[in-house]
Amino acid sequence: MNTGSTLYLVLDLTGTFAFALNGALTALRVVRLDIVGVVALGMLTAIGGGMIRDVLLGDLPPATFSDWRYLAVAAGGSLVAFLFGRGLDRLARSILLLDAAGLSLFAVSGALKSLHFGLGPAQAVILGAVTGVGGGTLRDVLIREVPAVLTNGLYAIPALVGAFLVVGADRLGLPDLVSAVVAAGVCFGIRMAGVHFGIDAPGPPGTRRAAGE
Amino acid sequence: MNTGSTLYLVLDLTGTFAFALNGALTALRVVRLDIVGVVALGMLTAIGGGMIRDVLLGDLPPATFSDWRYLAVAAGGSLVAFLFGRGLDRLARSILLLDAAGLSLFAVSGALKSLHFGLGPAQAVILGAVTGVGGGTLRDVLIREVPAVLTNGLYAIPALVGAFLVVGADRLGLPDLVSAVVAAGVCFGIRMAGVHFGIDAPGPPGTRRAAGE
Amino acid sequence: MNTGSTLYLVLDLTGTFAFALNGALTALRVVRLDIVGVVALGMLTAIGGGMIRDVLLGDLPPATFSDWRYLAVAAGGSLVAFLFGRGLDRLARSILLLDAAGLSLFAVSGALKSLHFGLGPAQAVILGAVTGVGGGTLRDVLIREVPAVLTNGLYAIPALVGAFLVVGADRLGLPDLVSAVVAAGVCFGIRMAGVHFGIDAPGPPGTRRAAGE
Repeated sequence: MNTGSTLYLVLDLTGTFAFALNGALTALRVVRLDIVGVVALGMLTAIGGGMIRDVLLGDLPPATFSDWRYLAVAAGGSLVAFLFGRGLDRLARSILLLDAAGLSLFAVSGALKSLHFGLGPAQAVILGAVTGVGGGTLRDVLIREVPAVLTNGLYAIPALVGAFLVVGADRLGLPDLVSAVVAAGVCFGIRMAGVHFGIDAPGPPGTRRAAGE
Repeated sequence: MNTGSTLYLVLDLTGTFAFALNGALTALRVVRLDIVGVVALGMLTAIGGGMIRDVLLGDLPPATFSDWRYLAVAAGGSLVAFLFGRGLDRLARSILLLDAAGLSLFAVSGALKSLHFGLGPAQAVILGAVTGVGGGTLRDVLIREVPAVLTNGLYAIPALVGAFLVVGADRLGLPDLVSAVVAAGVCFGIRMAGVHFGIDAPGPPGTRRAAGE
Repeated sequence: MNTGSTLYLVLDLTGTFAFALNGALTALRVVRLDIVGVVALGMLTAIGGGMIRDVLLGDLPPATFSDWRYLAVAAGGSLVAFLFGRGLDRLARSILLLDAAGLSLFAVSGALKSLHFGLGPAQAVILGAVTGVGGGTLRDVLIREVPAVLTNGLYAIPALVGAFLVVGADRLGLPDLVSAVVAAGVCFGIRMAGVHFGIDAPGPPGTRRAAGE
């Protein structure tokens, strides 16, 4: 499992960094917090999804707390965003891009970890998606926004697709490394296409939703 | 324990279905979400209480993830509400009825499971009530409402009464099947009486609360 | 570990009582809840931080549920606040004082417990701070306030300092009793100085924050 573990760690730490930047930038833009608030929201966004995953898997203490690299990457990303936030912010869609990156990486790594812990395939897909959306959901609850997973149709779907692809590939015996990269790429692509074209999931039957609702 | 387990599973799955309908209908009525938001809120409402219970009991991964029937019932109930929500909605108080049903079933099943895991009677009563109110509380936090358990006097009380009855009956050696049905019925009755008559728990001494406050 | 356990229990129960009063008074002042809401918010504030800590440490069921004294102290404190809240409320800053006391005691006891469970020093400091701010954060989320840990610079910092001092002293082999009292006192002092003088942590570089922002 050595290659698998390394792959898994790289995915997880990259996702942690992306979400730390995202959470800290959100803190700067949306609620104008000071350094403590920025770092706290960045770290929670970064490690929240993995923490929910590890609690539900019973892998306690979560990797976040037993492995210092998660804390270091989460704190480092948050500090980078705090110090250079005004510059990063000019990169217009950086918050959305980072969020999509974290979503994709965590959905895939969460699904893989769930499989390794013996969950069935359907459960691994769902727990992968929960890992992907978990950190952002905690972030949104703390700053009092309705979480993107509820309001934005193409947020949970790419996470489910990414998790589904990596679980399917695992069942077919395909190598995890390739399938993880492909699955994360597909998830990222769907998510950014949704952002770019403003695509939404269908509303309930018989309703027509006004533009911008 | 075979009968006990079956009873417990039936209570739990029925409560899961009721809360899935309730959460999904809430998503349709209160926040007008698309299909992903409706199913996500329905599933979280349905399995949130049991998930909190299982995390606190250390029974990990939660039954939700190790037993596919919970996921299937939660997803099915949410989809039914999404597809037929407009029809169900005309049944005026269906959201409140379903919430009361889920509350009653989960309070009783949560208390029974806590006893089986060796908690003391007071702890089992409280964890039963937490199971009952947990899913609805997560639902309310995500859609930014102050949770019913805080604002509505006769929400936590029936859950505590139901859990107390089933724990008391267990200590007296009465059969779980009968006591569970009676306790859930009493909880449901108190809750619906509170809704019907607008009964509230007492406010702090020396205050008088304006009507409708 | 007998002395350590006793020290730890005394810190924990005192913090539980302070946070129960604080949460219940917050319920009375901010959202004017009835008795059930007051006791529910008081108990959640009181045992929320320790519950998060025990879940993350994998010490399940949490001490709250296996040890009835936590539940009794949390319920008792909440009831006292409910019954005498109008009197306590006249003590102008009692809510802030109680919050600072709970923060300090839980930061220290959380860090000590994390060390005893084998976490590394950095992790123990962070989990101690999480224990300190956890109950108040749950309280703020439920009543729909942005949590103090995000908006108030000198909320997380004293918790981190208190946890750091007690972890550092433990590593140096100093007696836990003395270091715990000193660390909790320093944390409490920093927090109250921040409240008194309105000190804030620095904002992001290049910004100037308007007064009262």
